[in-house]
Amino acid sequence: MTTSPELLAPTALPLTALARALSEPKGFGDASLRRRRPGDIELLGGIPDDTALPVDALREAAGRVLTGERSGPAAFQYSQSAGLDGLREWVAAREGVDPARVIITNGGFHGLSLAVLALVERGATVAVDNPIFPLFLRALELSDGRPLPIGVGTQGLDVDELEHRLRGGARPAAVYTVPDFHNPTQGTLPADQRTRLVELAERHGFLVLADNPYRELRFRGTAVDSSAFSTSDHVVHVNTFSKTLGPGLRLGWVVASPRIASALVKVRNRQDSHTSTLEQEVVIDLLTHDPTWFDATLTRANALYRERADVLVDALHERLPGLVEAVRPEGGFFLWPRLTDSAIDPAALYAAAAERGATYQQGEFFASSGRREFADHLRLAYGNHTPETLRTFVDRLGSAVESLR
Amino acid sequence: MTTSPELLAPTALPLTALARALSEPKGFGDASLRRRRPGDIELLGGIPDDTALPVDALREAAGRVLTGERSGPAAFQYSQSAGLDGLREWVAAREGVDPARVIITNGGFHGLSLAVLALVERGATVAVDNPIFPLFLRALELSDGRPLPIGVGTQGLDVDELEHRLRGGARPAAVYTVPDFHNPTQGTLPADQRTRLVELAERHGFLVLADNPYRELRFRGTAVDSSAFSTSDHVVHVNTFSKTLGPGLRLGWVVASPRIASALVKVRNRQDSHTSTLEQEVVIDLLTHDPTWFDATLTRANALYRERADVLVDALHERLPGLVEAVRPEGGFFLWPRLTDSAIDPAALYAAAAERGATYQQGEFFASSGRREFADHLRLAYGNHTPETLRTFVDRLGSAVESLR
Repeated sequence: MTTSPELLAPTALPLTALARALSEPKGFGDASLRRRRPGDIELLGGIPDDTALPVDALREAAGRVLTGERSGPAAFQYSQSAGLDGLREWVAAREGVDPARVIITNGGFHGLSLAVLALVERGATVAVDNPIFPLFLRALELSDGRPLPIGVGTQGLDVDELEHRLRGGARPAAVYTVPDFHNPTQGTLPADQRTRLVELAERHGFLVLADNPYRELRFRGTAVDSSAFSTSDHVVHVNTFSKTLGPGLRLGWVVASPRIASALVKVRNRQDSHTSTLEQEVVIDLLTHDPTWFDATLTRANALYRERADVLVDALHERLPGLVEAVRPEGGFFLWPRLTDSAIDPAALYAAAAERGATYQQGEFFASSGRREFADHLRLAYGNHTPETLRTFVDRLGSAVESLR
Repeated sequence: MTTSPELLAPTALPLTALARALSEPKGFGDASLRRRRPGDIELLGGIPDDTALPVDALREAAGRVLTGERSGPAAFQYSQSAGLDGLREWVAAREGVDPARVIITNGGFHGLSLAVLALVERGATVAVDNPIFPLFLRALELSDGRPLPIGVGTQGLDVDELEHRLRGGARPAAVYTVPDFHNPTQGTLPADQRTRLVELAERHGFLVLADNPYRELRFRGTAVDSSAFSTSDHVVHVNTFSKTLGPGLRLGWVVASPRIASALVKVRNRQDSHTSTLEQEVVIDLLTHDPTWFDATLTRANALYRERADVLVDALHERLPGLVEAVRPEGGFFLWPRLTDSAIDPAALYAAAAERGATYQQGEFFASSGRREFADHLRLAYGNHTPETLRTFVDRLGSAVESLR
């Protein structure tokens, strides 16, 4: 006889519909949750390298703040929900906008989450990258949003396809995309397509949710103007210090119109009130003590990431000649190679590689369509692995491929 | 001719129903937002004193973390949404619970907010303190919750009244109360009433949302056992380091059943993922480097707060004899004196006192009933003012009273 859960816990507190709708980690999340064996090489997440993080500079900045040289005990007290003026001003100068358009968040994901709560009505349609950064779909669960997949190519979101869907009657509340060094496809949306996307947003009355955590990590080519995302009242432009100062800080920002910024702050006010005053003070000191420091730090970090990206691409071509197509990245943390031999079963390859201690994210986990797509792609995150480790990874992957042929 | 806002901004992005329902600051918030003049004395918020905050100890702990002596670069990287094990274990030991029942939040308010989202269905009734910590009503807006006011006396929440309402058919999803050193009424709920409240919750299937930020600030009398709040599956017990280490850190915790903790973590996962790893590492070091340090720090801080509470009570009785009733607090940050002369108009008194540079929170702002109640009370927050400043405040208040008689 089976006992129902209801009988076991007759008075268990009911969860809200919102909480019940939140999915368990699966697919993309599984790989991160699996048991790790010593020696495994995991190319799983968009994680900056430990050696690229400014531990020493942060210690010095924290010292200046905590000796009271900078801010005194105010660093320990409540502060404004929108963020400290000094940090908003630094971000505003960098983004070329008025500080009233900047609010400080606990990392980029927090900005996405606030925008979903404030601007995506429950059950609304949201056009999204396909393939997509899968965790955005989890944020969308907060509003029970329905994803409408729009293709992403080597030049980012396919704005033609979006326009076609709009002409066909699609009425999304928002369009979500990663414009620079797309996760997972590496592509960068050209400036004219950014402008066109914002024009469509203004004409059709939807929000552009531009998720830009990798923008600062360009190591090749020319930066693409993102001012279209920073001036329209139809854009929430999300960025973060996670990839440059460290994700553990949980520090990011949003650029939005004053009206939208105000709505986001009101939601934020009902969460945790504000980002740590102390951490903001330390980072303000870090960024302003020597105004050349941040860009110099980016330059050093990006040289590291460029070498790793190139080592990975070269190793794939050398070890698996003719079996993978890989595009040399211009920035960011991801490679999105495609298996060209359709005889190789992607799931079997993943298992064989994992057995050999080489783990990556399987392409199919990035589909936003609900269909099985992109199974012939691998997402390889190279940011936090040395060239030597990346070569060993590719050796193991090669051995896995050979085992299947 | 009047131009409608719609014509001015024909395509302005619509906010969600959730965002539109969030109220503007009023009443309680107004006082904090008013323009401050030099020399004004504001007894407005539950703010710890600058001199009671462990700036030096935190600098040393940060130094140990940032030299890598403690955690190395992991302090800069992503970490678990539930919080770092070391901090959960410290809290669990202090609360006398299993670490699986503890999750780390960005301050106490964040714990309330997560519980509202996960456990208060949209539009549900929530029984709340009356008078109440007004900002809880703002958190409740996230679920469009309907407050059902329950009286609070010198011994905290009136559990008799709650039971009467339950017998009368009230079916709240939750009961919100501040059990220790109630904000604003100073009262502490006796242990037997805590047990009774939890029994009612289990029988009727509602959540007890026990908001306990002042518990550590007892400076007189005996601590009341709160274990009833830490063992039931029908309680979310919320606490924070805001009043002891500093509100600017945004660091708190929740004790809840593993099932509820898991639901809260899933909501949290869709917000900012986790609390700053770096800040958690620093606070773990602070709390564990010398295991006697935290309690010794509380003892010093509470001596300071006891003196201030007593100075304020004595000054009121001396300067306004027979005009106010004030109960000597046993802990916390608040005095809730009552004006005994009904000829004094509370609003006129507030204005006259503000004109003389003495500001406080007016009692009526703490009503959760929607009616005008408690206007004969003043909420005076004494934690962050020296005895001398408190005496000057009372002098100004006395002068304001005299001006009205």
